[in-house]
This record gives sequence, C-alpha cells and structure tokens, in this order.
Amino acid sequence: MSAGKLIGIGLGPGDPELLTVKAVKAIKSASVVAFFAKAGRRGNAREIADCWMSREQTELPLLYPMTTETRFDSPVYIETLRTFYETSCEALSAHLGAGRDVAVLAEGDPLFYGSFMHIHVRLRERFEVEIVPGVTGMTGCWGSSQEPITWGDDILTVLPATLSEDELVARLANTDAAVVMKLGSNFSKARAAISRSGLLHRAIYVERGTMPGEKVIKLADKTDDVAPYFSLILIPGQGRRP
Amino acid sequence: MSAGKLIGIGLGPGDPELLTVKAVKAIKSASVVAFFAKAGRRGNAREIADCWMSREQTELPLLYPMTTETRFDSPVYIETLRTFYETSCEALSAHLGAGRDVAVLAEGDPLFYGSFMHIHVRLRERFEVEIVPGVTGMTGCWGSSQEPITWGDDILTVLPATLSEDELVARLANTDAAVVMKLGSNFSKARAAISRSGLLHRAIYVERGTMPGEKVIKLADKTDDVAPYFSLILIPGQGRRP
Repeated sequence: MSAGKLIGIGLGPGDPELLTVKAVKAIKSASVVAFFAKAGRRGNAREIADCWMSREQTELPLLYPMTTETRFDSPVYIETLRTFYETSCEALSAHLGAGRDVAVLAEGDPLFYGSFMHIHVRLRERFEVEIVPGVTGMTGCWGSSQEPITWGDDILTVLPATLSEDELVARLANTDAAVVMKLGSNFSKARAAISRSGLLHRAIYVERGTMPGEKVIKLADKTDDVAPYFSLILIPGQGRRP
Repeated sequence: MSAGKLIGIGLGPGDPELLTVKAVKAIKSASVVAFFAKAGRRGNAREIADCWMSREQTELPLLYPMTTETRFDSPVYIETLRTFYETSCEALSAHLGAGRDVAVLAEGDPLFYGSFMHIHVRLRERFEVEIVPGVTGMTGCWGSSQEPITWGDDILTVLPATLSEDELVARLANTDAAVVMKLGSNFSKARAAISRSGLLHRAIYVERGTMPGEKVIKLADKTDDVAPYFSLILIPGQGRRP
C-alpha cells in the first residue's frame, strides 16, 4: 500500500467562491480534511470551505493550544507551538501512512505566512506533497478596494505591523506601494507610522475583505483603534501609467 | 436600459484550474469577453480562459500596437500606449453603453501590475465595475517551488527587474523575502544583483509556473541568460518558525 498525499489547499481571502476550481476538486476528493482552529470554535478555514465539504469525509481539527494570550516570542509560546505542530504532524501522518490523502485547509495561500507551512516543512521529506495556491488575503482586499496596488515598475513591500513604529516608518519611506498586515493590537502603531510617513491620505483600511461585513474605508476616516484578525491596510502605488 | 458592468477577471498564474469559481461563473455569464493580445496571436489570457468560454459569447481582442520593440520610457511608446488604451476603452464603452456586461481577462490578478488597470481607471467613473481577484503569478510560482515564501514577521519585497543593478542590490540587502519580476532582457542584471547580495544559494528560478513546460530550478543551476515572459526569481524568507 502506498502512502497518501499531503495537499496544502489555499482557500482564498474568505468568499467561498474565491476558491480555485482546483482547490474545490482537491477538497471534494480528499479522504481526510484537516484544519487549524481555536479550541471550542469551528475556525475560519473550516467555515470558508464549508459549502465544498461532504459528509463522507473524515474531519481532523488541529486545535491551537493558545493564540494571542501569550507573547509570540516568549519561550513558553515557542515551545507550546512546537509541541502542537509535532502532535498535529503525528495525527496527519497516521492518515497518510495508512494511504489516505489529507487536504489541509489554509486561509489565503498555503505558503504565504500561515500555519500550514509548519506542517509542510516537517512532513515534506516523508510524504508526497501537493500545493494548491490560493488568492491571498491581501489580493482579495485590494480587489474589494477596487484600487490597483502596483503599476509599471512599482516596488511593493509587505510589512507585518509587528515591526516597531520606527522600522515601519523607514520601510514606508522606501517603497512605492505597501500592504500592512497583522494589525490586531498593532493597529494604532501602524496608523501612527503611516501618519508620520505622510501617507495617511493614500492609505485604505480593509476589514473582512470579500466576506459578509466587509468594510473598505480611508484609513483617515477610521475613528477607532479596533482591527480584527481579518483586516489590513493598503497603500496603493502611483507608478507609471500611460 | 441600464448600462452593462465592467468585470476585471483574474485568471490566475496559468493553469486553467487555478481560476476561481467566481471567475469561471463571471466568464460564462458575460455577453462580451475582452482580452489583450499581440497582433497575430490569440494571447496568453485567451489561452488560459479557453476551456471556460462558450461559442455564444462575443470576443473582443484588444491588440497591442507594440510591446517590447520600443523602450517603455520613450515618448513614442507612452503616446502609442495611451492612444491604444483610449481606443480600447471606446470599444468597451460601446458594449457597456448598450447594456452588455463585459468581462476583461487579466493574467494573474487584475489589480497587480498588468493592463486591465489602464482600462479600469479610465472607465470606473462611467460604469459599474466588479473586480474578481485572482491567484497572482508569483503565488503560483512559489506554490510550484513548494517553498514557503514568508514566515512569521518576514518582510516581502516585490521588485521589478527593470530597476538598476545597484538599486536591486540595495533592496535585496534590506528584506527577508523577495520576488524579482519582469525578468526578460533584465535577467542577467537580476542574477548579478542577487549574486552580489550573497543570495544566490537561496534563489529559485521558476519558468511557466503551473503551466505545461513548468521549470523550477535553483538560480545557481541556471546556465543561460534566457528568461521568457512567464518567469521570475524567488528568494524565500527564513523567519521565525517554532
């Protein structure tokens, strides 16, 4: 008996119709569908894929032991996550070793930030892997904004808002277009950096892009400091355009 | 009679199954399907969408008057392209004004570089616009490489190889992960910049990612200087990974 295949499936930015045809086929044909979630919740990935799942499939939830309660750079956090990924890989390996294909759902694209990569690097030497690329969250968000993000020879920089304010300012000064991700509790810092860079008038805030409750506003018009998981800031480029 | 809707459709990186479900629906239901191509050719966009088209649709090819024969920053090039986009918009407006929805095919994503944006900015005030985001070419390519592009707090920089060698070196020194696009005649310059940056051992060259004839090799193993339209260089990040 040959081993099963590990398939990393990009789910796209949130709208279930923004899965690719290939992703839908792969979900429907996998014996096992695995997904990350917080304990006690179904999780965003499973929600997005819901209309493409069938009842005959085995579902394998991989439940995070913690998420934002502990600082991401603390030794406890790192060790807890390492153990979590290793335990998850054991659960996946049991299915793969028994010859069952396992689809792992990944919000956005499986190789652009995100949890699937931690599974992938641990299992890629042992099992066949297939990657089904997806529309990234940022691509969905600039689509919702209807603003072209990059023109001609524009340089695009993708910045996690976890960077320091000074670092963000330095980076923003040195790019044509930018996407600021991972807002959450870093939102007010990111906004301060964008203001200091003189870019507030060009910045667009997008929340829940392509999903119910989508919000697209000028960052300058946002009056609070609350930015949920599905949110980011776009600074569209202004490059060459004939 | 109400006017038709202009729909910018992301076709993804090249594999026809990497269109989204939404893109396929939008192509099938549009009365008119427009696409850019070189005179005398069907063009990549039309090829990618082929299996999703029907015979009842009106096809509207928009034929570039020139592409790489003239320097992109010459006044003749700029003026010729401007006239071309304006003529294209007249052809699209005739359909839209007559109440017909027009889908414009865009390789990758419609708002990430590319020609659709030049139509979009000219018509957005006059007609309703819908954007169907797509998997970008770079996302397809890092999927084909099976290498995660960004981890944790990695900064990603997207660099057009049209920049000077010194500029590329400076940018590469200052990022965690990079994608170098628009190779073509800039390939040897891009490779020189990557070598000077000490990143040759991490760089991956991808040609025709997700398409027939796909090639994924270490940049260090590439022995010639030929890089076609569908090619780019990836420098995956190495960030935080528990």
